Amino acid sequence: MKKEIRGVVPPVVTPLTENHDFDRESYAKLIEHLISGGVDGLFVLGSSSEVVFSTDRRRDEILKAAVEFAKGRVPVLAGVIDTETNRVKEHIKRAADLGVDAVVATAPFYALQTMTEVERHFRLLAEASPVPVWAYDIPVCVHTKLPGDLLLRLGKEGVLAGVKDSSGDDVAFRQLCLDNKDAGHPLSLLTGHEVVVDGAYLSGADGSVPGLGNVDPAGYVRQWQAFQAGDWAKVREEQDRLARLMRIVNVKGVGGFGAGIGSFKTALWLLGIFASNTMPEPVTALSGENVEHVRGVLREVGLLP
Amino acid sequence: MKKEIRGVVPPVVTPLTENHDFDRESYAKLIEHLISGGVDGLFVLGSSSEVVFSTDRRRDEILKAAVEFAKGRVPVLAGVIDTETNRVKEHIKRAADLGVDAVVATAPFYALQTMTEVERHFRLLAEASPVPVWAYDIPVCVHTKLPGDLLLRLGKEGVLAGVKDSSGDDVAFRQLCLDNKDAGHPLSLLTGHEVVVDGAYLSGADGSVPGLGNVDPAGYVRQWQAFQAGDWAKVREEQDRLARLMRIVNVKGVGGFGAGIGSFKTALWLLGIFASNTMPEPVTALSGENVEHVRGVLREVGLLP
Amino acid sequence: MKKEIRGVVPPVVTPLTENHDFDRESYAKLIEHLISGGVDGLFVLGSSSEVVFSTDRRRDEILKAAVEFAKGRVPVLAGVIDTETNRVKEHIKRAADLGVDAVVATAPFYALQTMTEVERHFRLLAEASPVPVWAYDIPVCVHTKLPGDLLLRLGKEGVLAGVKDSSGDDVAFRQLCLDNKDAGHPLSLLTGHEVVVDGAYLSGADGSVPGLGNVDPAGYVRQWQAFQAGDWAKVREEQDRLARLMRIVNVKGVGGFGAGIGSFKTALWLLGIFASNTMPEPVTALSGENVEHVRGVLREVGLLP
Amino acid sequence: MKKEIRGVVPPVVTPLTENHDFDRESYAKLIEHLISGGVDGLFVLGSSSEVVFSTDRRRDEILKAAVEFAKGRVPVLAGVIDTETNRVKEHIKRAADLGVDAVVATAPFYALQTMTEVERHFRLLAEASPVPVWAYDIPVCVHTKLPGDLLLRLGKEGVLAGVKDSSGDDVAFRQLCLDNKDAGHPLSLLTGHEVVVDGAYLSGADGSVPGLGNVDPAGYVRQWQAFQAGDWAKVREEQDRLARLMRIVNVKGVGGFGAGIGSFKTALWLLGIFASNTMPEPVTALSGENVEHVRGVLREVGLLP
Repeated sequence: MKKEIRGVVPPVVTPLTENHDFDRESYAKLIEHLISGGVDGLFVLGSSSEVVFSTDRRRDEILKAAVEFAKGRVPVLAGVIDTETNRVKEHIKRAADLGVDAVVATAPFYALQTMTEVERHFRLLAEASPVPVWAYDIPVCVHTKLPGDLLLRLGKEGVLAGVKDSSGDDVAFRQLCLDNKDAGHPLSLLTGHEVVVDGAYLSGADGSVPGLGNVDPAGYVRQWQAFQAGDWAKVREEQDRLARLMRIVNVKGVGGFGAGIGSFKTALWLLGIFASNTMPEPVTALSGENVEHVRGVLREVGLLP
Repeated sequence: MKKEIRGVVPPVVTPLTENHDFDRESYAKLIEHLISGGVDGLFVLGSSSEVVFSTDRRRDEILKAAVEFAKGRVPVLAGVIDTETNRVKEHIKRAADLGVDAVVATAPFYALQTMTEVERHFRLLAEASPVPVWAYDIPVCVHTKLPGDLLLRLGKEGVLAGVKDSSGDDVAFRQLCLDNKDAGHPLSLLTGHEVVVDGAYLSGADGSVPGLGNVDPAGYVRQWQAFQAGDWAKVREEQDRLARLMRIVNVKGVGGFGAGIGSFKTALWLLGIFASNTMPEPVTALSGENVEHVRGVLREVGLLP
Repeated sequence: MKKEIRGVVPPVVTPLTENHDFDRESYAKLIEHLISGGVDGLFVLGSSSEVVFSTDRRRDEILKAAVEFAKGRVPVLAGVIDTETNRVKEHIKRAADLGVDAVVATAPFYALQTMTEVERHFRLLAEASPVPVWAYDIPVCVHTKLPGDLLLRLGKEGVLAGVKDSSGDDVAFRQLCLDNKDAGHPLSLLTGHEVVVDGAYLSGADGSVPGLGNVDPAGYVRQWQAFQAGDWAKVREEQDRLARLMRIVNVKGVGGFGAGIGSFKTALWLLGIFASNTMPEPVTALSGENVEHVRGVLREVGLLP
Repeated sequence: MKKEIRGVVPPVVTPLTENHDFDRESYAKLIEHLISGGVDGLFVLGSSSEVVFSTDRRRDEILKAAVEFAKGRVPVLAGVIDTETNRVKEHIKRAADLGVDAVVATAPFYALQTMTEVERHFRLLAEASPVPVWAYDIPVCVHTKLPGDLLLRLGKEGVLAGVKDSSGDDVAFRQLCLDNKDAGHPLSLLTGHEVVVDGAYLSGADGSVPGLGNVDPAGYVRQWQAFQAGDWAKVREEQDRLARLMRIVNVKGVGGFGAGIGSFKTALWLLGIFASNTMPEPVTALSGENVEHVRGVLREVGLLP
């Protein structure tokens, strides 16, 4: 399965009960929703999965359930997000033991460092990992942008199998796609920018990791199929529709994670897939007119009657 | 001409003699290069035109020459970049007197402000301007991102005629394009991101302002025409070629403006359009192996034999 | 007068009439207020003087008046704030012609650059200037922090006569003071941090440039005299009082320059020194409860009965 | 012991063997070095203690050893640094079980949030904690500045017992000290800025948490005693000496944590307190001329013969 991960790989949102327990039943429904929607893989314990809000025990619960519910139908990538090398290595060991197909690690964060340490970090992770290692480029969270030449070098040496790009730097992504192609395509390159996936496909992306794909996996799958067929008008049309759906995040008085994942969870709840839109502490769930806002957008794009 | 500016509108680079005088002769050649390449307009005194390096006298020299050399064949937009309202208003008056078709202003910069002042700034500029006012969204220089809802509101009220988007925020740009379309298209929306113009066209851009278009205007014009014809494979192929050309900026030991505009000027010099690659003080021109690097890339993409 | 500027050198706020004209009469009163308060110099056309809001004509009006009203009793330093070298050189020429004792320049801003250009910028300014050049370290406005080793090197070579430090980086300032002392004190080092001037004196500052010194020059002068006398309890006590006075800036619904300089102007108006608290476009003056807030603080610290 | 923690409370650096094991023997020597130097408390598992590099098992080893070696002679504060509420609560439980006197938590990090979540985070931590909770204000690592009014409110309500300020925002710290005094001193306020501790004492700090205090605890203790005695000349003189000692961090080719903590560990090694200057992965230890640089500075300030 190494390096073959491509297509639509949504970062799976984590349902909680109103008591803040992990809601296995809703999770099973979400994974069926995604796989029946046609997705090509599952990215579990990424930022959207509330990985940094989850204790190690919770992380294990989620991973176990994901592998169990996926039943080998699609590959499972596991986020192993933590501050520095030794802590990440522990997550890798547990994730691999639980049977995931690849792990996804960010640059180290919290402590200040230089690219020397970032590179050494990924090399140490790959040495220790029994499964392929992907880099997660997410400067908005870790405050380090992974340079294209570093990623490509680590790809050519077999240290990295792929990149999940949530950098928002579409110029760097375009150049990385070109360089990767010239080098024989050592890296799988997936974009996390759900509102401009069509542009990423033009740039040469091997697929997408759209958080919004939790809500409408079939839309992203149709878009991917249109891209494979060279039907750009359809690629674009789906993207415009999905961009309108993305307006669920425009809630009032709430920002950041609470608005983004909060609206995804609320949509899944309104769609009957989640039993609750509970958020992890210290974030509170959307309520009142913000729920109505999400409902209104879902109706507008035809996901609710 | 109001609001009709669309297509390829390169930000015209400014040639200097080795003595740091304005090189009118090279400028005439560049403008012929652009217009004969098929561009739809000229953006003069933008960031790429070294506007902030130019004294008021130099700005006037450049504007006068641009209007003279354009001979009415394409519209001329003039950057009126300065720190705050009253200084910008002076530039607007001079630019309008010199016969430009529109002016392009950034958010105020240097002093800290809130969106209240940014909005008032644009309203005061529009009141004072005899020609249409465009907003220039360039947070990397002015450290303020213009919010989409502000731009749209000012567009609907007739305060702004268009936006030159150099924000790098492709998600915001996509949403602005959709909102603008829904509102009856009050704004012309041009992207400044020369490496991902194809993605901006998917998003709904009305054209592009590519700095790299100084070097290869015909490439961007072919891309625009392919877009108009719905030939996305061609749009994308041109973009990949232009992304490769963009590698002229990957020079060593030089960064920022000196690398970006420095390599554009060096390319124009090597192409025989500029008599020198002189840069404005305190920046020094590319030399030695950096010049050879630019030459190598020009050969690789077929612009030099 | 070279390099001898020390003590309390307030950045002089600029009064405007309600019609946005320069209010010479109020300006004369302010300068008398400052000089009779015992200040050691005047810093005109700094950030607090609304330099970036002022047209070149307005800048000349202000400088002329400052030199005229100061009558040689204290040195006048003039800000020559503009984006890049050639524009700054024009301001230097005009300021020197108008008779100022020194000029104060920031790093270049708006265009991206490296330290190579920043260093060259200051060297070119010094070559062109008939009066001593000071560096103005204000990263919050220009987004470049001037490194201590660069400042010291330029000081030792005679390129720079002093530094106005508004960096907020007290650690770097401490090390610069020590290095400057070790090198024979080539630079005059003034702090712009009006709320922690006492700490800067401990660090070895040669004086201060307190915006709040417009409102209470005598307070800062008493503090300086206490410092000269080694009476640290008094230095600290004045600072605590001045920190309480600084709470005039805690206004509601207004931020940045509008809150900071807005409250200084409002205080000067309430103290009878300014005829109006008018702000430069696009900023609006404080009003209503914000004016009452300023009045309340002035009463609390004993500046109003 | 609640709220009484004041004076010099160094953040204790963690020694590693060359095999990257925790070096208990060196740690015992360091703690004796600190306590015999006269410090008033120990801050364990802060940023300087490489907390984010340490697995949970390693964190426990360190805390256990700290409590054991301190023998109740001074209070032990424990950092409980992790991304979000539930993970931090687990660290609090373990730290309290191991017998620490207080815990120190940062704002949540990695996921984007607003002040609503930051406030709720601290409230939830305090509810769950059997020992007093301190706030750790370190925006350079967590990218959130804790506002003074939030800290004061939480102090007045008994949610927070104190603040370790590593914000570098000396203006905000001064105002917080004044407000805290006016409110009856609910918070203990310690500064982490080892190079300007004297200024923080002028501002009203209740003590310091100097990383450099690992190397020269006696210096910081003499400074504190001079402050208690009102001998400001002595306070300042010690600070100047300590600022010169801080130049151990000016190593070449190494930055961030590797330079800062790397030079502290190297100094402790050269002083015979640590058996090695090994750094946690992925950081490498200082070597070659960088070690000689540290040795040179130690000699210069008289800590080595």
